[in-house]
Amino acid sequence: MDIAEQLQLLTDRLRAVEDQLAIYQLLTRYSPAADSGDGASAASLWSADGSYDAQVGSWSGTAAIAGLFDEALHQGIMAKGCGHILTTPHVRLDGDRATATNYGLLCINDGDNFRVWRVTACHWDLVRTATGWKVQHRVNRVLNGDEAARALLHRAWD
Amino acid sequence: MDIAEQLQLLTDRLRAVEDQLAIYQLLTRYSPAADSGDGASAASLWSADGSYDAQVGSWSGTAAIAGLFDEALHQGIMAKGCGHILTTPHVRLDGDRATATNYGLLCINDGDNFRVWRVTACHWDLVRTATGWKVQHRVNRVLNGDEAARALLHRAWD
Amino acid sequence: MDIAEQLQLLTDRLRAVEDQLAIYQLLTRYSPAADSGDGASAASLWSADGSYDAQVGSWSGTAAIAGLFDEALHQGIMAKGCGHILTTPHVRLDGDRATATNYGLLCINDGDNFRVWRVTACHWDLVRTATGWKVQHRVNRVLNGDEAARALLHRAWD
Repeated sequence: MDIAEQLQLLTDRLRAVEDQLAIYQLLTRYSPAADSGDGASAASLWSADGSYDAQVGSWSGTAAIAGLFDEALHQGIMAKGCGHILTTPHVRLDGDRATATNYGLLCINDGDNFRVWRVTACHWDLVRTATGWKVQHRVNRVLNGDEAARALLHRAWD
Repeated sequence: MDIAEQLQLLTDRLRAVEDQLAIYQLLTRYSPAADSGDGASAASLWSADGSYDAQVGSWSGTAAIAGLFDEALHQGIMAKGCGHILTTPHVRLDGDRATATNYGLLCINDGDNFRVWRVTACHWDLVRTATGWKVQHRVNRVLNGDEAARALLHRAWD
Repeated sequence: MDIAEQLQLLTDRLRAVEDQLAIYQLLTRYSPAADSGDGASAASLWSADGSYDAQVGSWSGTAAIAGLFDEALHQGIMAKGCGHILTTPHVRLDGDRATATNYGLLCINDGDNFRVWRVTACHWDLVRTATGWKVQHRVNRVLNGDEAARALLHRAWD
């Protein structure tokens, strides 16, 4: 390879690494926004036409997504104290699109201890935009033995 | 440094970064495979001669590892709904070998909530193969006050 | 761009990637040190003038930080078996300084299961030193509905 080819190869490889880390950065922004009740900040992770299917409800567009953090369910657990824990995602890059699979643990303060209210399989469809990677669609399913959650996990590699 | 030396240095540094992220990708593939009951997919993370010592049992070779997900213990918790949560590993690279240390939280659905059945120290011996990084040996020990689990954690840097 | 400029750009981008991964490596070293009771190793993640405000107490300097792991509180939960789980941090780089925001889950063995004793918001101020990235200050606040924890999370992007 000549120097120009070597530089291009390094640039391409570096870009894949940057994409993976940018997606980590995007997803790790969700929980602090959710648990501090900043709906606008949480919704800013989605693209303008993004959507969120959280099993207990479904929201389309950033205004609707921002609004869910004002709902009684979210405000109630936030008043008790909650942590929307997310694990490191498994990422699949495909040019300007990507998917990520991880787990959510919703921990609620119960006085002396926390209870783990829900453990969910999470699947994220991501898109590269002019302002960086954004969430186009997120789906959660509770791991309660139902096939739907297992099928969602399977999409990590299938 | 001349240009060839600079390109080589960048290539070496980039490779270390890619290795660390590839190991993240390998480990984050485990839980979705385990929790969806896809033993063949979970076992494919191991090298052909790989082994898994999970304290409750020990398995050698990918066929045996794939089989553990069909056992009654695993099928039982999967029917209830389970999440084999893994934390971001601490990685040590050493050429074509690496180790990773992290934690496992096994969460089981208990109706209204989940219980955290086991929190384990996990140590992974990894090897670079023709088809990418693979697990050569994984050991888990429950953090129940026994010295064995603490010794396993200590191997993260020792 | 000429070749020298391209090499410089790649070097700068690669350095940002390495910084983010180095901070992951630093933070994932904490829990294994804490849960195996190795105070000196845990304290070595801090800079010489580093400090740790864990709400239940505050410690300044690496000798004091190392000492906290010998205190009755820490020794007591370690004897039962504990896991100081940390999530993947959201990182903000700023030259030789950085911040990281993540969650801590303190899981304690309770016989048949583990209980999640505390879920905390964690904010880390980090500094690049001659021996790599170090913690200059860490603050934890329990997510129990108090505004302090939510304000700490908000610092992830604010």
